[in-house]
Amino acid sequence: MNFHDNDVIPIDATPNDRDKIVREFKTALKETGLTVPMATTNLFSDPAFKDGAFTSNNPRVRAYALQKTMNAIDLGVEFGASIYVFWGGREGTEVDASQNGADSLKRFREAINFLTEYVLDNGYDLKFALEAKPNEPRGDLFLPTTGAMLAFIATLDHSEMIGVNPELAHEHMAGLNFTHAVAQAWEAGKLFHIDLNDQAFGRYDQDLRFGSYNLKSAFFLVKFLEEVGYEGSRHFDAHAYRTEDYEGVKDFARGCMRTYLILKEKAEQFHQDKEIQALLAEIHADDGKLTSITGKYSPQNAASLKRQSFDRAALGARSVPYERLDQLTVDLLLGVR
Amino acid sequence: MNFHDNDVIPIDATPNDRDKIVREFKTALKETGLTVPMATTNLFSDPAFKDGAFTSNNPRVRAYALQKTMNAIDLGVEFGASIYVFWGGREGTEVDASQNGADSLKRFREAINFLTEYVLDNGYDLKFALEAKPNEPRGDLFLPTTGAMLAFIATLDHSEMIGVNPELAHEHMAGLNFTHAVAQAWEAGKLFHIDLNDQAFGRYDQDLRFGSYNLKSAFFLVKFLEEVGYEGSRHFDAHAYRTEDYEGVKDFARGCMRTYLILKEKAEQFHQDKEIQALLAEIHADDGKLTSITGKYSPQNAASLKRQSFDRAALGARSVPYERLDQLTVDLLLGVR
Amino acid sequence: MNFHDNDVIPIDATPNDRDKIVREFKTALKETGLTVPMATTNLFSDPAFKDGAFTSNNPRVRAYALQKTMNAIDLGVEFGASIYVFWGGREGTEVDASQNGADSLKRFREAINFLTEYVLDNGYDLKFALEAKPNEPRGDLFLPTTGAMLAFIATLDHSEMIGVNPELAHEHMAGLNFTHAVAQAWEAGKLFHIDLNDQAFGRYDQDLRFGSYNLKSAFFLVKFLEEVGYEGSRHFDAHAYRTEDYEGVKDFARGCMRTYLILKEKAEQFHQDKEIQALLAEIHADDGKLTSITGKYSPQNAASLKRQSFDRAALGARSVPYERLDQLTVDLLLGVR
Amino acid sequence: MNFHDNDVIPIDATPNDRDKIVREFKTALKETGLTVPMATTNLFSDPAFKDGAFTSNNPRVRAYALQKTMNAIDLGVEFGASIYVFWGGREGTEVDASQNGADSLKRFREAINFLTEYVLDNGYDLKFALEAKPNEPRGDLFLPTTGAMLAFIATLDHSEMIGVNPELAHEHMAGLNFTHAVAQAWEAGKLFHIDLNDQAFGRYDQDLRFGSYNLKSAFFLVKFLEEVGYEGSRHFDAHAYRTEDYEGVKDFARGCMRTYLILKEKAEQFHQDKEIQALLAEIHADDGKLTSITGKYSPQNAASLKRQSFDRAALGARSVPYERLDQLTVDLLLGVR
Repeated sequence: MNFHDNDVIPIDATPNDRDKIVREFKTALKETGLTVPMATTNLFSDPAFKDGAFTSNNPRVRAYALQKTMNAIDLGVEFGASIYVFWGGREGTEVDASQNGADSLKRFREAINFLTEYVLDNGYDLKFALEAKPNEPRGDLFLPTTGAMLAFIATLDHSEMIGVNPELAHEHMAGLNFTHAVAQAWEAGKLFHIDLNDQAFGRYDQDLRFGSYNLKSAFFLVKFLEEVGYEGSRHFDAHAYRTEDYEGVKDFARGCMRTYLILKEKAEQFHQDKEIQALLAEIHADDGKLTSITGKYSPQNAASLKRQSFDRAALGARSVPYERLDQLTVDLLLGVR
Repeated sequence: MNFHDNDVIPIDATPNDRDKIVREFKTALKETGLTVPMATTNLFSDPAFKDGAFTSNNPRVRAYALQKTMNAIDLGVEFGASIYVFWGGREGTEVDASQNGADSLKRFREAINFLTEYVLDNGYDLKFALEAKPNEPRGDLFLPTTGAMLAFIATLDHSEMIGVNPELAHEHMAGLNFTHAVAQAWEAGKLFHIDLNDQAFGRYDQDLRFGSYNLKSAFFLVKFLEEVGYEGSRHFDAHAYRTEDYEGVKDFARGCMRTYLILKEKAEQFHQDKEIQALLAEIHADDGKLTSITGKYSPQNAASLKRQSFDRAALGARSVPYERLDQLTVDLLLGVR
Repeated sequence: MNFHDNDVIPIDATPNDRDKIVREFKTALKETGLTVPMATTNLFSDPAFKDGAFTSNNPRVRAYALQKTMNAIDLGVEFGASIYVFWGGREGTEVDASQNGADSLKRFREAINFLTEYVLDNGYDLKFALEAKPNEPRGDLFLPTTGAMLAFIATLDHSEMIGVNPELAHEHMAGLNFTHAVAQAWEAGKLFHIDLNDQAFGRYDQDLRFGSYNLKSAFFLVKFLEEVGYEGSRHFDAHAYRTEDYEGVKDFARGCMRTYLILKEKAEQFHQDKEIQALLAEIHADDGKLTSITGKYSPQNAASLKRQSFDRAALGARSVPYERLDQLTVDLLLGVR
Repeated sequence: MNFHDNDVIPIDATPNDRDKIVREFKTALKETGLTVPMATTNLFSDPAFKDGAFTSNNPRVRAYALQKTMNAIDLGVEFGASIYVFWGGREGTEVDASQNGADSLKRFREAINFLTEYVLDNGYDLKFALEAKPNEPRGDLFLPTTGAMLAFIATLDHSEMIGVNPELAHEHMAGLNFTHAVAQAWEAGKLFHIDLNDQAFGRYDQDLRFGSYNLKSAFFLVKFLEEVGYEGSRHFDAHAYRTEDYEGVKDFARGCMRTYLILKEKAEQFHQDKEIQALLAEIHADDGKLTSITGKYSPQNAASLKRQSFDRAALGARSVPYERLDQLTVDLLLGVR
């Protein structure tokens, strides 16, 4: 299970209460065999954070957010967490007159740099995973997409220990292809965690059951994660419909896992399907003659490339059988192959 | 004026035609006093690029795109350009079954790395500015936002010579706050160029006259560019309504510039407005006591911060007068202050 | 003030409590001079309505919703309301497998028909105003736009007493032009009430301060309402930012009204502006020769129209100076005319 | 095949050319056995219509649009069409200052009323089907959704001969549930035609292969059409990806039909599935006691309903097993039931 500080320890718990809860929680973990792979701080529910936490315009709020996070990191490590997620639900603005977007990023960086030093100084074995979201509950959040978050990470002091926690619903809110965002994070070595759910484009944060909105995009995501060998959590950050009772919540949780597993089998089937694979081979055909020149710059390669003659019309007229490939995928998804 | 290769030299021009056009174009530049600050390659109109250029699944197309760009770089430099823009209008996909998103980024990187080496090898004084777009004409483009592009740049061999060319309309297509994207680029030292226009969220690429859709977001953008001292082009990449004749196109062009200049004056007025500035001073009040601790990590600062006592309820109840600040901004925009 | 049943009388009040509250509320109205022009039922907060009210799949819930509304109508009329608003915040679905969309509309119609008969039978002087919303908190609401609601009203037994209550934010959630929706309602004689606020396209329900997101679209709305002589309430259904304290909420309320009144003056200025009016006269020029034929069908008019010769190329080449007209409007809005 | 006037007869054909083409086309129909169930006018490609056709601010353009439509109706009827589709691709605006939205609707109404009289006067057996779209190529179209179009139809002189032609992609552009829009049209007796394709929310008009974006929403649409017994055309108004050659276009066309037929079989399977049907029976359980009271107003029913006692908490706590129902549907779609 994931450790959210105030889900376990109320924000107004006394030190005694806190210690008691920690003891009981550790006992419960031991008895049930449950583990805590991930921990996080709630920096969005309390009205103190109404104008942001690490990027608040108020220096006391920023300091309080930092203190709260250090304490929650201590606890998370104590419970065994190896990933610490940051979701800055209030790190944004409705009124652009109130701040300079660049300064807000500086504040955010200062906080993350401070906390990475804290982790290193304490010898904790902990990585950070930053989660982006475009808006809601704030009008605009400062780092709205996984791409923006990856760019931000590249500017941090200890970027090697910081990756992303992309969430399907958040990327879909901006109408973006989630698998592409995950691919960029993966390719940069930054896919430290992932939040799976479902969501229609251009809507409030829906957090639907995995696969319940768009089966095809869910399939390509599963296919990608399985193909590249992603070994982190498949973390379902979703909610049952408000119509459900307790049994319904269990139906919901089972449904998330069930759909993932069905799609995983279909990804395997995709790789076994001879017609699909033949089509892919045709699409990716490469005799290596040109890639040996274009793969790496050298004056000779550049000169050689400049001398090449291309039949533009033939390239324009070539067959690229994507409709057929896509229909075969649809057939496979619908179980009629 | 900006140099788009095939706008000046038809894609099927003979070498003789090409040389003649180049000579005449250079003469025209000299006679009119016009300059070419920016150049770019058209890698999207010709059917050869129907499945992408640098990321096409076809190695001949990728090689042709590279050759075409080297040639256009040569010309751009000859005409005096110091910025080379890449807009990968077809670097995307409709059919995710056809590719692995991570491999597509590898191909894109290979091409940009090749071209930076080419520029360096030839001793050209040229920087690259990459332009993101979420979709259209392809279903999904690989690097859909300015944030994703900044993250990609951080992975390139010569990232120091590569920045972004954010376009207002493209960011708005994904419902994102454009000024925040520009602020991130600026703060990372990567705002090499900018494309100004206007656009409603969640629509086809509209390229409207600057300021014609949302005056307030245009104002915050101008305010940001002027405040931070951005010195690059204010490049209007927009189109007149299809209803316009030649006079109307001139009205449109004048309107872009006029609105920018009016908003620039209003940004100055914002800085002179005593009530607005007093409110901002109140919002950003900082006695420095805590920022001296939180600004930089040290074991002492961490320990000191942990000992701090915060009145959470007071922080939650504090006044943050954004409605008033925003209304003053609206009054200023409407010319009633 | 508007009467929302459970805002005044808790849903679990005893009959005695209810009577006491009603007496005190009526006294307060008399003493303050406040009136209740509009009343409505809360059919969305209580978990009983988790699957809808009038369109719930559960007949007991439907019956309870009907009873609750009859009671609230009685009270609304007692307090002097002449408009009764229906906002079916839960009349929708996440799971299309659970219902047939056509049957859901039949249930909705049955309820509204029942309630209009109830009003007529009791001799109440009350009109209904139905409010559309595309989604949130449900995945999809059944009548998602003002247009859909107008179409639904045309199928009701007593459609003459039923109009719409368009809400700016709700129409913008679907990326639609709100003024056009209001124009359609007005033109059909169905603009019984209006909810003013502001909202970005493709977002959660933001309910922002009127004019705070898009000044230009707010201007055209005010201009329309003032031009056509709309005499109903200008009802601000918005919320202050969560950052505000009590003073901030008052700033917010004042801001809504202030911006409306500024824009109303600008609408008047638009009508006085000689250059704008000359341009509009040019755009709408009509010598009446063709409109006398096309205005009304007759065999003679049809024959005459068929004989007309049109210079298609000239029509295509004609000047339609919208860029200029729009820039003049922008200048006027920015206070520089 | 559908008859689009200028697809068969160039807009600048001479009367002789026209007559020749008509003769040849009729011969070709006879020889191939193809029929023309639907006809329509192109009122959007020619620059004459750059500011609209029936709603243009120019009376000559409006008259020309009317004349062109009368001529195309004559031809459509000659070729055997029984449905005439109106898609007003340019009936909108970018500049709201140029018109009053209500007046534009009056012009549109005038044109449609004229044309219905023309059809009646000529004794043609022809119905009209109006098609809505929210935007593109214009900034905002006047009747943006199927709902708005249905509302407009209710205000026409001969509304009995006028229905709608909903298009999936157009409704999805506004992020609306297409099946719900179709259900409203069907329930009003106005589903005269339908345009099937696919589309992501909040994007340019994609016109994708049916079922290629969202299999689940496509399934519910097919299920609805088959359940209610819709007997009109299943008209695929879609385009192959631009990557395709001639074989690819055929793959695309086959794919549209194939996916429809697979989903039709799955709809049948849904009706045969005992577990799904048992769940639906549970969800819709109704002993009739309350529906006999709420179904139709009478003073007795109202009084009886007021006396009913409802256990609000029990209604709130009741089981509504939508997660389970939805997962069973997902299983069925994926072919694992």
